[in-house]
Amino acid sequence: MAGYSMSKDDYLRRLARIEGQVRGLQAMVAEDRYCIDVLTQIASVTKALQAVGLGLLDEHLHHCVLEAAAESDEAGDAKVTEAMEAVRRLLAS
Amino acid sequence: MAGYSMSKDDYLRRLARIEGQVRGLQAMVAEDRYCIDVLTQIASVTKALQAVGLGLLDEHLHHCVLEAAAESDEAGDAKVTEAMEAVRRLLAS
Amino acid sequence: MAGYSMSKDDYLRRLARIEGQVRGLQAMVAEDRYCIDVLTQIASVTKALQAVGLGLLDEHLHHCVLEAAAESDEAGDAKVTEAMEAVRRLLAS
Amino acid sequence: MAGYSMSKDDYLRRLARIEGQVRGLQAMVAEDRYCIDVLTQIASVTKALQAVGLGLLDEHLHHCVLEAAAESDEAGDAKVTEAMEAVRRLLAS
Repeated sequence: MAGYSMSKDDYLRRLARIEGQVRGLQAMVAEDRYCIDVLTQIASVTKALQAVGLGLLDEHLHHCVLEAAAESDEAGDAKVTEAMEAVRRLLAS
Repeated sequence: MAGYSMSKDDYLRRLARIEGQVRGLQAMVAEDRYCIDVLTQIASVTKALQAVGLGLLDEHLHHCVLEAAAESDEAGDAKVTEAMEAVRRLLAS
Repeated sequence: MAGYSMSKDDYLRRLARIEGQVRGLQAMVAEDRYCIDVLTQIASVTKALQAVGLGLLDEHLHHCVLEAAAESDEAGDAKVTEAMEAVRRLLAS
Repeated sequence: MAGYSMSKDDYLRRLARIEGQVRGLQAMVAEDRYCIDVLTQIASVTKALQAVGLGLLDEHLHHCVLEAAAESDEAGDAKVTEAMEAVRRLLAS
């Protein structure tokens, strides 16, 4: 069971809302809505996605990484290396 | 007609793909997929959304802003101020 | 004369402060200060640099781009294309 | 001794180079260099600073966080919470 399963419903609710916002973006473009309004909505969806990502990363570090560290130094180091790659991808996106 | 209507179909296709990716994220969380894999997908969706945003901003500057500038200095200035606020929101997201 | 020369002194003052902050970062590392404190300071310097960049972009769009647009459509388009590349580099950094 | 002391010289060299780049930015502004060239340099300095930040975070997670986790669950959790706040600040900058 993955580390974030504790608040799985919360993540699913947030992602469902994001899906609705992306559908809303399609409607805005289809209706030729003003670009700046579309951009404002895109910034808001991006922020919501980043918040989900940061929540998952937080739980991953608290659970998977610390559990691996309790097993062995090598396991802890491997999980930290993997988590850092995820941080780099989030920062670059 | 908004400035981005030239490639409206392209934006709609890209947003439909992003909507599918967000549905995919919900499936990943529902199936307790590994956090790092979910984070990789979130970074990819965020990048796709930013690309749509940059495309819209590009067309907005080329069309709405330059057309406003052709009307009057005040109109051009007002559109630039508005576009800069959109850039700040994209950078902060 | 570049478009941002109006508040040149303001930019120079801000950049001098940023230079001082980067020297402060070197002192923190030299004194083995706690990583998290160094990271907090790095985030603050990055934000200050981005603020200078957004200020320059703002003036560039208001002056160089709108002046070029007043000359000819081609000149305006070329300046917008160039400014968008700068926005992409700022977003990717 | 802070966790990043192993490659302290490397961080100090990188920060000294960044300090030189910020001095170069001041010279560019003082000489009324073209805004877009200044923006390109700002994006490059920001990237260099983020790279130092990511390096420090990497070592912090590998050393301070894993060492704290070896001491006690509470210590590990506290260090992860603190590291996540640093990640949020880096992402917001």
